[in-house]
Amino acid sequence: MMAGMPLLLMVAVLLQAPAPDDSRPASTNVLNAQYPRIHADGRVTFRLPAPNAQKVQLQPGGADNGLGKGPIDMTRDDKGVWTVTIPPAVPGFHYYWFLVDGVQVNDPGSETFFGWARQTSGVDVPDKDGAFYEARDVPHGEVRVRWYLSKTTGAWRRAYVYTPPDYDRNMKTRYPVLYLQHGAGENETGWTKQGRANLILDNSIAAGSAKPMIVVMETGYATRAGASPGGQAPPNAFEDVVVNDLIPMIDATYRTLPDRENRAMAGLSMGGGQTLQITSAHLDKFAWIGSFSAPMRNFDPKTSMNGVLNDAAAFNKRVRLFWIGAGSGEVAFHEAVKQLHTSLDGLGIKHVLFVSEGTAHEWQTWRRSLHDFAPRLFK
Amino acid sequence: MMAGMPLLLMVAVLLQAPAPDDSRPASTNVLNAQYPRIHADGRVTFRLPAPNAQKVQLQPGGADNGLGKGPIDMTRDDKGVWTVTIPPAVPGFHYYWFLVDGVQVNDPGSETFFGWARQTSGVDVPDKDGAFYEARDVPHGEVRVRWYLSKTTGAWRRAYVYTPPDYDRNMKTRYPVLYLQHGAGENETGWTKQGRANLILDNSIAAGSAKPMIVVMETGYATRAGASPGGQAPPNAFEDVVVNDLIPMIDATYRTLPDRENRAMAGLSMGGGQTLQITSAHLDKFAWIGSFSAPMRNFDPKTSMNGVLNDAAAFNKRVRLFWIGAGSGEVAFHEAVKQLHTSLDGLGIKHVLFVSEGTAHEWQTWRRSLHDFAPRLFK
Repeated sequence: MMAGMPLLLMVAVLLQAPAPDDSRPASTNVLNAQYPRIHADGRVTFRLPAPNAQKVQLQPGGADNGLGKGPIDMTRDDKGVWTVTIPPAVPGFHYYWFLVDGVQVNDPGSETFFGWARQTSGVDVPDKDGAFYEARDVPHGEVRVRWYLSKTTGAWRRAYVYTPPDYDRNMKTRYPVLYLQHGAGENETGWTKQGRANLILDNSIAAGSAKPMIVVMETGYATRAGASPGGQAPPNAFEDVVVNDLIPMIDATYRTLPDRENRAMAGLSMGGGQTLQITSAHLDKFAWIGSFSAPMRNFDPKTSMNGVLNDAAAFNKRVRLFWIGAGSGEVAFHEAVKQLHTSLDGLGIKHVLFVSEGTAHEWQTWRRSLHDFAPRLFK
Repeated sequence: MMAGMPLLLMVAVLLQAPAPDDSRPASTNVLNAQYPRIHADGRVTFRLPAPNAQKVQLQPGGADNGLGKGPIDMTRDDKGVWTVTIPPAVPGFHYYWFLVDGVQVNDPGSETFFGWARQTSGVDVPDKDGAFYEARDVPHGEVRVRWYLSKTTGAWRRAYVYTPPDYDRNMKTRYPVLYLQHGAGENETGWTKQGRANLILDNSIAAGSAKPMIVVMETGYATRAGASPGGQAPPNAFEDVVVNDLIPMIDATYRTLPDRENRAMAGLSMGGGQTLQITSAHLDKFAWIGSFSAPMRNFDPKTSMNGVLNDAAAFNKRVRLFWIGAGSGEVAFHEAVKQLHTSLDGLGIKHVLFVSEGTAHEWQTWRRSLHDFAPRLFK
């Protein structure tokens, strides 16, 4: 709060002068912040006051970020305010930050989003086909923050749990569960904050395309009790959290259908890799698998996924959905997933290939992936 | 996520070298960030790499911040890493940021917290008496993110709703509700993220000191449908949201006890002022009132609170609890609340005065306030 700050000053802080054109503050801005602004044609104007800086740049997060290739120089006005307007951006959510004389600086006008192993700024550029992830006048589910004690790590963990609309009214209904994982450098907040998974499910359920389901979003890092902490945990530590701690907690806490036919797992990038490992090692627990832009560099259908692709008949019988996807703009991931598609066809493995046209290794690819994937589940 | 970032580099980013002493990373740090670090005696070490900067300073948020009076100069080493260790800090949560050649910069090692009308860094300094807000091995409630459409504003709003442990098991139990508001420049996330309200309730309920209750935390800003947006809304716009939109939605959505005897409101600073206004204007809806460090500069017992203090007998009969508090370290608020206490005694108005010893206009005052206030409710 602002102790001792006079009300008028407070108002002045919150209200910046709007720009005199057709642009509008981004939906990802904090309350009343006027910048960044999105123009009708998709251009984006960024702004940062830094009177003493020698150089201020806009840095989109990642090499194939839809805001363009950074760093992008900004221009100083005579009051020390730096601005830049970039050409029409790719629709969707983009991480970014400023470089002020080389130091990473978040945009004070932006909400923060956990990515790149830190809280960074982000801007959501509207998509003309983006109604599927907007907050619309349909019944909304809840996102619940659930604390639980993990035996594997010996520590409290926090899961985000989406419950569908009317979960608290249909007291005798039990629901299938999708476990949904974020990418490297992100955490359990990513799928709802950047990905809008709750709104995608709300809209898909309202449209009748997806079955009502519970979605569980956890943090894909784990350190075994007693071990020294590391950034990227050995995969099997997180695997043990999912199998031994998370699933039993979810099934004991929520009205789930606790069998493999009603349990799916999907994840993006690193989370896609974790999904392929964990589901294939525990086909007794999962029947639905989604790999959203998983790293495939070392994928070998003979040995990866614990070898389960070697027996197509058995795999096709047990796995109800094997969904692989990528964006056409993330070249390596796109090539790899097309190659996997060819391999799977050769092996006779039933699967669904999805390509998000024009989007790269970014959240718009994964919003679209979830929007395609979720309606195929539990049917 | 970190597209194309090799695993080893990712690990290097996440793992910084720990400092060789008894200090530990703050609990408010992001995953694996080593700074800021808290020493056993309460000193705190801050660190920021900024090789090209001429001057880097630590800026605690607010004049009476428990980290000290800022800006505090930091020292550059030969690699361009700036550090400072401050004397033992006041226990509790403190907003802060860096000034890099005058530009506000969040600490990449810190989580972000919405305060000062932007996402800022924050550090939680342990309190030897702080077990009441720690995550302990007791039954935990949930914090639910609930979207709803407000008729007053014509827009979707987001409430955070704490449901007590076993809410989903005791299907015939109905619960009383506490409406709990943040301060100016903060939002609906403050009471759980900075204030740990959910953990305070979990622990108080487990100890048997507080009755199980629902806690509703909303954003204390509102702009009427069709009006141009402002930072600080006219108080009655938010009042209308609470009375006409929020309370009916909560009573329709959750198993509440929907009468005044089972409805409380409290808030901190600006939220305390809103509480005094809204409860006194709607004593048909609220019987329990908590003012945590409310601004009292213009408070007049004759005219403030819609004049309800003029009739002590009627007030004492209707209001089951009138709780006023402040920290001894927030001088003006402390003096004002003591003066109000004297006035109320003179008027014969029953009330509870609470003073948080040694804390200022900061969240430790309000954690302690909630810890004292919640157990007095609904009994």
